[in-house]
Amino acid sequence: MDKKELILNAMQELLREEKGATCSVSDIARRAGIGKGSIYYYFKSKDEIFDAVVERTYSQIIDKCKVIVEKSQLDSISKLMLLFQSYITSTVESSIDEYLHQQFNASIHQKSLAEILTSLSPIIAEIFQQGVEEGIFKCEYTLEVSEIILSVFTFLLDPGIFSWNKEEKKRKLEALSLILERSLMAPKGSFDFFIRDF
Amino acid sequence: MDKKELILNAMQELLREEKGATCSVSDIARRAGIGKGSIYYYFKSKDEIFDAVVERTYSQIIDKCKVIVEKSQLDSISKLMLLFQSYITSTVESSIDEYLHQQFNASIHQKSLAEILTSLSPIIAEIFQQGVEEGIFKCEYTLEVSEIILSVFTFLLDPGIFSWNKEEKKRKLEALSLILERSLMAPKGSFDFFIRDF
Repeated sequence: MDKKELILNAMQELLREEKGATCSVSDIARRAGIGKGSIYYYFKSKDEIFDAVVERTYSQIIDKCKVIVEKSQLDSISKLMLLFQSYITSTVESSIDEYLHQQFNASIHQKSLAEILTSLSPIIAEIFQQGVEEGIFKCEYTLEVSEIILSVFTFLLDPGIFSWNKEEKKRKLEALSLILERSLMAPKGSFDFFIRDF
Repeated sequence: MDKKELILNAMQELLREEKGATCSVSDIARRAGIGKGSIYYYFKSKDEIFDAVVERTYSQIIDKCKVIVEKSQLDSISKLMLLFQSYITSTVESSIDEYLHQQFNASIHQKSLAEILTSLSPIIAEIFQQGVEEGIFKCEYTLEVSEIILSVFTFLLDPGIFSWNKEEKKRKLEALSLILERSLMAPKGSFDFFIRDF
């Protein structure tokens, strides 16, 4: 394993032990079994290490989504359903998620939301485009529609930013499935799985 | 003027002079012409003072929007147009905006975005509802649709989070006007003003 991975694993372990807020770069070095100087060769600060831990976590989720889209020979709506299920069941480890939602990490949090949006939107747009070619969707703004839908998932539905109750969340997902259906001029009920599976 | 206002004005002045990052609570007290102890009676920290400056700024914008909606006897689409124009021309003072977009203020920034969304969405939903009663819109999720649209304005179109070029921004607004038109089942071209006026 390369040193960078060792450092990220060490921080992730410390987070699991709830030492995220208190651990220092020295603690991370000790846990990784390498010198403090080596860490500074890769990362400028503890914040940068955490940033990389978050990025690695989200990359794994996005890679999983990519595999689904590329592998399957399914029609567009089934692909979207699979992607949605994969996304909502890819739980970010709770120790990382909690630390990410601490006030002092707001900047890393915001950056990570933006990264998910920019990485996932072309993948979803490609499936929308497939639907257009299948003749079941009608839309000239597939990339933009997927960005708008992802803004809702990453921002409006982020429990660290808003605290909606169950009923409010349900209504937002119903609205989202309706908006997507009407925006893509898709068959009625195409996105009912938003509500069923959430 | 009450002391709280004096404190906020003092910090706003220091921001204008680009002393936001360096000024201390003592500096703010000196500028406000009051004792440092008095400040701590109202605010716990410099961050809290800045938070209140931001909140005051956004409240003024939202109040302006409310006045438009309550005063005018216009139909729903004209009201939405006025509201949109008022929102995009309400420039947050650039000194406040720049400081707000500093990394270390990400948490206050995020909170302010959430506040705009929750304050503005019922106002917009009311106009959508008026449109439903006028018989030009058809939608059972007026509040949720306005929250979704506002997620795009506050998050996806925030220049501090994403850096879209002019063409990308234009396409997002075109998509947004199309999505809103289809979501509300509004007459074709109802929201062309998004693109015209931005």
